[in-house]
Amino acid sequence: MMVEKTMKTILPLDPRLIVQAQAKLDRLTKPRGSLGRLEELAAQYVAISGEESPLCPKARVLTLAADHGVVVEGVSAYPSSVTAQMVTNFLNGGAAINVLARQVGAEVQVVDMGVASHLNHLVGLIDRKIGHGTKNMVLGPAMSRDEAIRSVEIGIELVERAFDDGVRVVATGEMGIGNTTASAAITAVMTGQPIFRITGRGTGVDDEGLSRKRRVIEQALRVNDPQAGDAFDVLCKVGGFEIGGLVGVILGGAACRIPVVLDGFIAGAAALLAVTLAPTCREYLIASHQSAEDGHQVVLEHLGLHPLLDLQLRLGEGTGACLAIGLLQSSLLLMTQMATFDGAGVDQSVTSDPDDPEAT
Amino acid sequence: MMVEKTMKTILPLDPRLIVQAQAKLDRLTKPRGSLGRLEELAAQYVAISGEESPLCPKARVLTLAADHGVVVEGVSAYPSSVTAQMVTNFLNGGAAINVLARQVGAEVQVVDMGVASHLNHLVGLIDRKIGHGTKNMVLGPAMSRDEAIRSVEIGIELVERAFDDGVRVVATGEMGIGNTTASAAITAVMTGQPIFRITGRGTGVDDEGLSRKRRVIEQALRVNDPQAGDAFDVLCKVGGFEIGGLVGVILGGAACRIPVVLDGFIAGAAALLAVTLAPTCREYLIASHQSAEDGHQVVLEHLGLHPLLDLQLRLGEGTGACLAIGLLQSSLLLMTQMATFDGAGVDQSVTSDPDDPEAT
Repeated sequence: MMVEKTMKTILPLDPRLIVQAQAKLDRLTKPRGSLGRLEELAAQYVAISGEESPLCPKARVLTLAADHGVVVEGVSAYPSSVTAQMVTNFLNGGAAINVLARQVGAEVQVVDMGVASHLNHLVGLIDRKIGHGTKNMVLGPAMSRDEAIRSVEIGIELVERAFDDGVRVVATGEMGIGNTTASAAITAVMTGQPIFRITGRGTGVDDEGLSRKRRVIEQALRVNDPQAGDAFDVLCKVGGFEIGGLVGVILGGAACRIPVVLDGFIAGAAALLAVTLAPTCREYLIASHQSAEDGHQVVLEHLGLHPLLDLQLRLGEGTGACLAIGLLQSSLLLMTQMATFDGAGVDQSVTSDPDDPEAT
Repeated sequence: MMVEKTMKTILPLDPRLIVQAQAKLDRLTKPRGSLGRLEELAAQYVAISGEESPLCPKARVLTLAADHGVVVEGVSAYPSSVTAQMVTNFLNGGAAINVLARQVGAEVQVVDMGVASHLNHLVGLIDRKIGHGTKNMVLGPAMSRDEAIRSVEIGIELVERAFDDGVRVVATGEMGIGNTTASAAITAVMTGQPIFRITGRGTGVDDEGLSRKRRVIEQALRVNDPQAGDAFDVLCKVGGFEIGGLVGVILGGAACRIPVVLDGFIAGAAALLAVTLAPTCREYLIASHQSAEDGHQVVLEHLGLHPLLDLQLRLGEGTGACLAIGLLQSSLLLMTQMATFDGAGVDQSVTSDPDDPEAT
């Protein structure tokens, strides 16, 4: 099975590479550690890629789109038709993700994982449609177990193809009206946290909509009884096609030894499933930002990830991840372009560790 | 007097411009407010510049360098000689600020406000030397009142010249071994907070150095008795030439109606002085990041500013400000390049306010 093979390919990072990267950072003309999280980020990239002096990696945002049957329950501020409309917007370059991807030189690949409408006519869209939206999870599983597995396999294939294209960092993107409902359901199962704590307003439901959304999630969990120990069980019962795809992107990225920059809440829910399948993939993840969506903080804490940004974003598409790619680029540019103390003739700290051969 | 004239030129922002900018943002293909702080940033830029659809503004980092007599007391992990060495590094393009400025297309202007060494031979350095470092504030005022005024005037002139060069956003940068000591002293006076709370390790003093630094600040405040109501009194007694320059940059930026992106703790201390002279200048400030330096949080809270980033940076030079310029560019690119709901044929939120003529 493709997913199992991928899971077995994921290796832990070599801690010696982190130490080497930090030693390199410590030779640069700045007080030790003074670039804070940018130093961590550069060291993580070195350890993932195995490159000692990495150039800014070719980046691709994988924006996976799908619809959700549960939307008929009135859980979203927008109708399902918006998913297809936004796919068109992505392909025309007019969405937020297009703007932010252009800024950092990343490519946006838009994938139909299961949008409800026929989209065959759209030029540039990658067609991997599993179905015309999921089923309504309130009435039973959102998809079959086979479909769930297929969605993860597609994600793996997408990132493998990206790797073959020379991509060395992927960002998770998504579009799917109703997918904060699916993500909240997944988060409730995987973290054991109460529904009211991890369910937010998504694109902006009002108070009544939020209460309804919480009741819908409660009902879906009661009807389906997803098992936290079995990621595919959770994915098929209360997930979504694009969420399964993101699980595959995370596993595939780790297997290809490239960092996966997580966007917001939906990516986080996918990561909860991915780390259940292959805990080591966590080392390949970069948490781009703390979303304004309730529940995202719980997800990141559960994953043990610290977001780079907190800008109260709640848009998805991969937007927060793109901003973090900019920071990753900053960190690598600093690591590779800054002068060293020796090279620039700058005195080292008078309190540098005298036992450290680097500090002369 | 030049400073007074500049102070009088600073006008409050027109709240109608903020409303107009937000209306424009609300027409873009995204849930309302979903770009969080990037929307605030774009609206602030519109209100400052008066431009309805601003292009990414030409950016300049003003990195002001000076030495501090108080360093003889053993308050820093680095010797004063490093100030001049780093100035050379800036001019050679090898410092962190050069790398981050290049990334966002900003120019770095390095200004000698009062470095202890002779630097006349350095090509590209702007010579505005007021003295060969300040005097030791433990023994008396760091500089004369006239010198303090002159330092602020120089900052105003630098930003006026930047404006004439077409610059439409300035970032504050600085280099000066010992300047977290001066900044902590200023912060103690201006915020009334206890010295132990607002004094940090700067470039990295050890525990003993930190205790010494706190005692030195206490002594300097006792010897000089700076008056919080008189910014020039504080600046001349416990400030620094580069800090005075930054006060001028802030006042001058606001007077020229261009945003001033504050870097970390030293810029924050300068802002405390600037808002005492001209409270309205606060509206022109962008707090780039929350520095790892103790005391910076107190400064930002006192100023009522919310930092965009928290990456545990403590380098100075303008590095955090450069990262924030990247975010400012993101916000303006989003505002001007994203498609509108009407233009892209995307349905509006079903829960949009029916009384709002924009939401159709």
